[in-house]
Amino acid sequence: MAVGLRAPEALAAVPGVRLGTARAGLAKGERDDVTVLELAPGSAVAAVFTRNRFCAAPVTVARQHLAETTPRYLLVNAGNANAGTGARGLADARAACAHLAGRAGVHAAAVLPFSTGVIGEPLTMDRFLPAIDAALEAMDEDGWLAAARAIMTTDTLPKGASRTLDLAGGTVTLTGIAKGAGMIRPDMATMLAFLATDARIPQADLQAVLAKAVEGSFNRITVDGDTSTNDACVLAATGRVPVREGELSRLAEAVADLCRELAQAIVRDGEGATRFVTVTVAGGECEADCLAVAYTIAHSPLVKTALFAGDPNWGRILAALGRAPVARLDLERVTIHLDEVCVVRGGGRAPEYTEADGQRVMVRPELTIRVDLGDGEATATVWTCDLSYDYIRINAEYRT
Amino acid sequence: MAVGLRAPEALAAVPGVRLGTARAGLAKGERDDVTVLELAPGSAVAAVFTRNRFCAAPVTVARQHLAETTPRYLLVNAGNANAGTGARGLADARAACAHLAGRAGVHAAAVLPFSTGVIGEPLTMDRFLPAIDAALEAMDEDGWLAAARAIMTTDTLPKGASRTLDLAGGTVTLTGIAKGAGMIRPDMATMLAFLATDARIPQADLQAVLAKAVEGSFNRITVDGDTSTNDACVLAATGRVPVREGELSRLAEAVADLCRELAQAIVRDGEGATRFVTVTVAGGECEADCLAVAYTIAHSPLVKTALFAGDPNWGRILAALGRAPVARLDLERVTIHLDEVCVVRGGGRAPEYTEADGQRVMVRPELTIRVDLGDGEATATVWTCDLSYDYIRINAEYRT
Repeated sequence: MAVGLRAPEALAAVPGVRLGTARAGLAKGERDDVTVLELAPGSAVAAVFTRNRFCAAPVTVARQHLAETTPRYLLVNAGNANAGTGARGLADARAACAHLAGRAGVHAAAVLPFSTGVIGEPLTMDRFLPAIDAALEAMDEDGWLAAARAIMTTDTLPKGASRTLDLAGGTVTLTGIAKGAGMIRPDMATMLAFLATDARIPQADLQAVLAKAVEGSFNRITVDGDTSTNDACVLAATGRVPVREGELSRLAEAVADLCRELAQAIVRDGEGATRFVTVTVAGGECEADCLAVAYTIAHSPLVKTALFAGDPNWGRILAALGRAPVARLDLERVTIHLDEVCVVRGGGRAPEYTEADGQRVMVRPELTIRVDLGDGEATATVWTCDLSYDYIRINAEYRT
Repeated sequence: MAVGLRAPEALAAVPGVRLGTARAGLAKGERDDVTVLELAPGSAVAAVFTRNRFCAAPVTVARQHLAETTPRYLLVNAGNANAGTGARGLADARAACAHLAGRAGVHAAAVLPFSTGVIGEPLTMDRFLPAIDAALEAMDEDGWLAAARAIMTTDTLPKGASRTLDLAGGTVTLTGIAKGAGMIRPDMATMLAFLATDARIPQADLQAVLAKAVEGSFNRITVDGDTSTNDACVLAATGRVPVREGELSRLAEAVADLCRELAQAIVRDGEGATRFVTVTVAGGECEADCLAVAYTIAHSPLVKTALFAGDPNWGRILAALGRAPVARLDLERVTIHLDEVCVVRGGGRAPEYTEADGQRVMVRPELTIRVDLGDGEATATVWTCDLSYDYIRINAEYRT
């Protein structure tokens, strides 16, 4: 069902990073569901996490470990979110980190845990721990694609991409993978995304680069408005290639670009998605207003079902706009376009608009809803998908 | 599909109120779609309208007319919302009022227009105006049930109820009708609801009674989080029965009770609804926090699809709670019950909880999600329904 999305054919190895996967049987099906990502000593690591107050045990533990030391290993399991699991969940996450640390000969705090899957079930530790051993034995610089598959839950396709950048000190590689399809309305982070580069970037700069990239990518997508308890995004820099003065901004743009591609991939693979929709709101007084309008439209079940139907029911877009939580809104100045077709101008249907024009663009698998508020210079864009029968099926049957 | 809802068998006539309906063909099917409600001279009228900034032409005109004079007629059409219709929509609404006023021998401002149905299409006036004449000829004190049917859109059942109250000055009758099934997250008003009583209540008191009743009823329901452009609720008092000092509060409670029944009827008949769900949040610092938590849960597509599936996926309730826009939230203190079953306590699954218990209550057609925040004395309740395949079907096919 994914819209305009294909599985990556190859992902570039990042010198200083190795990945291994194995099957613990925590997720359904014959597939690997445990991933270990190893970072060479001296790597810098930046991370952002969910702002959901009900955050999962691995998020709590990962934050604590990050505060103690620089990570050497990321440990990911799919199939079980280890969320809503109370004290036992925290103990399990710590035990898994300690197990990996023991095998690898590092401090337990040098391992960051990540989990994704069903909420509220305890981890089956007697399956998880042996799979960690197996993943460690499978470590390889070319393990990115296998890892992209092993972190999937309801995703229909693995998501990953690579970039290279020629700097004065050498060629830098940047590779990232992500997972996510439902419970997607990230707030400061996505579901799970892991990026690494062999560039040499100080930790403070790396965190700034990541924060900015996430703001314009994972924080601009929504499938269903539900923020996950386990969202996390990590960017590691192994430091093999020096970055000279003035080159950091190019690298930052590459990170932002890669994050955007991964974020859009999550929406393209949104649960039940049949359309990939860009909602751009321009002419606002401030970016926050534009974002509020864009999200109100992108979350409206009525707009989303009209998108599913390919029905240019622009009245629903106007109705969503009308209830957006912004202080100022002059509907006489608003224009709305579906791709190149102007549907609303002067407080009502544009005079030249015809249903035939609307239907022609509305059935496209990828389209843009472009709102101009006519009130200022600010702009914002979010990406979303439609709401289909399959969203209901996937989420009604999720635990069966 | 309506949950625990039946069509009213009879609605009590309110002395001083007559209603007539007719078929204009604005709505699909062989049914009346135009309603005229006549109020005896000297009636007091209170009204609340949508807070959607993109309000429909009839809402704008009704507000203007209310400011000019006391209404004698309410004119309602189904099938066409006359919204997003610009200057022509305003002219059409005014012309319809003037037409009725001419026939009835009153000032045009004494007619309030109400429309519900498809957004963005102009009214077919050459069908609408003759139907107004026919409705005027059909005026009858016993026209309430026919009116409850004639104002329906995607409703599967008419909604109405009556109350009587013995006051010192005589028996007071209170009857109300409402319509609405989708685009339901009223903000200061519901879709359309019309109530009348023969009690004598000054306009200022009447407005206060209505505002309070709406706050605890139509402003506490949500089907899909989308606020209509045409919401309106009217309460008329024809003044036949005097209300003595101290009796107004009893009458106000009867109005509030009737509004609650009508509001719940809208949710029970929510588009695609298979479950009627009460979300009660107690133990909050203030009512606004409780409401924010309740609506976050009630709007979550993941909670709503779990309700549809009868799946006690309490993790989704916790995840919604965790992203609710409230300043303070201590998950260690939170308890969550599904009806009588405690599912969450102490930051995770309640120790005594079993899936069998959860499943037993979750398949009930009517159930309560009860959250206690353990942080204060405030409480709030909202009513909602699940999200099913039929919601998608109804809204994907709405204009076809």
